[in-house]
Order: sequence, then structure tokens, then C-alpha cells
Amino acid sequence: MTRFALTLEFDGTPFMGLQRQAHGPSVQQAVEEAITRVTGEKVVMFAAGRTDAGVHALAMRAHVEVAKDIAPFRLMEAINYHLRPAPIAVLDCQIVPDDWHARFSCIGRSYIYQIANRRAPLTLEANRAWLVTQPLDAEAMHEAAQSLIGLHDFTTFRSVHCQAQSPVKTLDTLNVRRDGDMVVITTSARSYLHHQVRSMVGCLALVGLGRWRVEQMGEALEARERKALGLNAPSCGLYFDRAFYPEELG
Amino acid sequence: MTRFALTLEFDGTPFMGLQRQAHGPSVQQAVEEAITRVTGEKVVMFAAGRTDAGVHALAMRAHVEVAKDIAPFRLMEAINYHLRPAPIAVLDCQIVPDDWHARFSCIGRSYIYQIANRRAPLTLEANRAWLVTQPLDAEAMHEAAQSLIGLHDFTTFRSVHCQAQSPVKTLDTLNVRRDGDMVVITTSARSYLHHQVRSMVGCLALVGLGRWRVEQMGEALEARERKALGLNAPSCGLYFDRAFYPEELG
Repeated sequence: MTRFALTLEFDGTPFMGLQRQAHGPSVQQAVEEAITRVTGEKVVMFAAGRTDAGVHALAMRAHVEVAKDIAPFRLMEAINYHLRPAPIAVLDCQIVPDDWHARFSCIGRSYIYQIANRRAPLTLEANRAWLVTQPLDAEAMHEAAQSLIGLHDFTTFRSVHCQAQSPVKTLDTLNVRRDGDMVVITTSARSYLHHQVRSMVGCLALVGLGRWRVEQMGEALEARERKALGLNAPSCGLYFDRAFYPEELG
Repeated sequence: MTRFALTLEFDGTPFMGLQRQAHGPSVQQAVEEAITRVTGEKVVMFAAGRTDAGVHALAMRAHVEVAKDIAPFRLMEAINYHLRPAPIAVLDCQIVPDDWHARFSCIGRSYIYQIANRRAPLTLEANRAWLVTQPLDAEAMHEAAQSLIGLHDFTTFRSVHCQAQSPVKTLDTLNVRRDGDMVVITTSARSYLHHQVRSMVGCLALVGLGRWRVEQMGEALEARERKALGLNAPSCGLYFDRAFYPEELG
């Protein structure tokens, strides 16, 4: 068996999420079925993260094991051919050692969240950003975000469906900047709780709207309870950006 | 009657073009019908440019005349409400003098063309860029582009359906730069012939692929005949960017 690392880009809009679901289409199912069409083998894909319905990915990492003798470039091209017309693309495909695991070897993940801050409905960015029609103070959001940096119990920002054993995580970065009508939030950490990024973004939006004081972000964190959560931002603005590994592949 | 200037953003994918067409949906028809629903009046919209089927706009300018007494902000909000779910949005609405004409007062237009230069099919950028899977030399493209700058007979780059009286135009800028996997072409001029931007981009792509020498761009221009055209780039990568007027509205 040869282990292949895949870099995936996808538009999450038509999917129930990355992970295989009983009740609807998933990125995992689409990729696995494409590989089966290429190799004739049943495969299981493991990914660096589990994105929710509607969440996009710019460079998700995953791996699969394949018995068929096939070169990485050929495999990538064939998967992309069979994926059509699903909005999923394999950007890169490489052979990795048998102990390289897309999820368990991953030492860092980064996300991007886009808020379109304008009155007008979205056209070109529909399903690509969260539309917030009241003015957002991006500087206040950035200031509030800094109170979440570091090692904390993130229970406030955790979905009730989260399966992580501990709510304690280390948040490395959480930055907010305005780029014209877009407010762009970028974050990185070793790992996140379920809904953590969307929960943090939702509360940052409340700060940006002036409905929360900057200090309330830290207070919500300290509360360590889900009901202290202000708002969960919608999935359409969220992008899984990159996954990081100890030894970057060439 | 009050004359309103509108700034329009739209995803051109589902439209036969900006201008009203007998055989399918247009941006003009959608906006005019939305205004009729707001005011009860039949209106005619005039726009700075006529974009083809599938061409997008970031900030197209247009004007309409309305008898109803309505504030610009209210009109904008009401048009946007009635436009849904069409992917068209009014970004700005202002009262202008009766002699201000979106098309005839316009003294400059700029376009952006996006080429996604990668092997993998497009997902998030589907219908937002032209996918070219062979490597493009953006520097060679930029160099070739400079031979088109200035006052020229652009017959080579003109659609057979072009209605302009003269093929002579002055091209002010035509720049090509690479931004990761994207090759971004920006251009500005007082006005363009029908298909001129897409025809120029198509030939630039041939230069980028090495199928045309850099000098062939100028040779094609000099030929002044349509059959010297190498390639017309597809509409999905083209964005009407901005329209310029002698006195910018406040």
C-alpha cells in the first residue's frame, strides 16, 4: 500500500461537511468515490480537520492508502477528473511515509473568516462571506481578540456536540483587519474545539457592532459556559486555510 | 423627474449580458423591473458599458429617471430588496444633474481579467476566472501588452458584431501581474471596442504560453484584421471594474 497526502480545495456550500454523513453529501464521500473510480479500491480518507456544512477549504490536507501502482501526478489528475462536477479539487498529491497521518501528524491549523460589511446584498461573494450590514469597528474587534490568545478553557466557544476530551486549547493568533468592505479574521492554533472559530467570530462581531464592550470578550471566556456565547457566525464565511506538519513536504 | 446614478455589482453568470435581450435574462431588465416594483413607473436604465453574457461587474455605473419622490438611500434599499435573488446589488445611489449620463458623460473605463493558472479545476473561483492549465509567463505577457498602449486601429481585437463607428481607440493601460496561481490583467481606456479586452487577453495568453513571441502582439495589432486574432478569452474571467467621470460624485 502506498500512502498519498492530498491537498484539497473545496467550496463547502453543497456539502453537509467534510466528514462522511449518513444524511447527505460530504467531501470525504466524494473524494473516496473518485479514488475508487480510479483504482477500483475501497479507500478511507483521513483529513487534518472536520469542517462543518458550508465551510470552505483553501488547502485542507488529507491522506489515503492505495494498492494500485500509480504516480502521484496521475492520481491527482484522475481524482480531479472523476470529482467533476463537484466543487472539490486536489491541488497537490505526494507520496508520504506510512506513519504520516493527515490528522495526527498535524501540529497546526489556520482558518480565515470573511465578513462582508456593507448594506448591499452579496453577489460575487454570495456563500463566500458573512454579510453584516451595520458598520463594524475592526480595530475594536482586533483588540478584543487578543484576550483569547494563549492557553485557556474555551468552553464558552465550544459546540455542545464537541467530542474533544478537554476544552483547554492554546490559541496562537487571532487577528482582525479591514480590507475595504471586507473584515478579514485570521487565526492559527494547534487545534480547535468544534465551532470554536465561528463562536469566536460571532462574539467579535458583537464587539465590532458596539453591542459588546471590548472587555466582554475576556469576560465571556472567563465565564466558561456556553450560555455566555454571544453569537455563532454562519459557516459560509469560514475557510480552512492550511495544515502544518513537523517536516513540510517538498 | 429625478435622475439617479447607480453603482452596480453583479455576477454575470446567469445573464445574457448587461443590455436587455429578447432571448434571455439581462441585468438591465432585472434592475428596471425592480425599480418598477418600487415606483410603479416604467424606467429605462443607461449604463457606462455593455458587458457580454457571463461578464461580471464590480462597480458598473448606470442612471435612471424616476418621478416618484424618494430619497436615494431608500431607493437603493428598495431596489436591492426587489432584485433578490438575482445576483445584482446596488452599491451606491445618488441624485445627479439631468445632464449627467452614465454612458455619454463617462470619460474612462477599467476592467480586470483573472486567469487561474493551475492544473486543478476551479472550485471557489468557478465562473470567476479563466482556467489555463499550462504555465503562463506573466512577465512576457506584460511586455507584450505594452505594444498595444496608445492610439491604434484595434480592428484585430474587435468583434464582427462591434457597432462602434471607428476601430481607432486609445488604450491607456494594460498591465499583467502574477499573484500566486492567479494572473491578473488590468486595463483602462476612455472606451473599448466590442470584445476588445477579451481579445487582447486571449492573445496575451498565447504569449504567456510561449505559442506567440512577445513581438507577435504588435504584429497582430499592425495586421488590422480579425483573422490575425489568436484567441478570444472566455467571458467568465472578465470584470467591469470602474467608470470614471469628469467630476466624481461626492
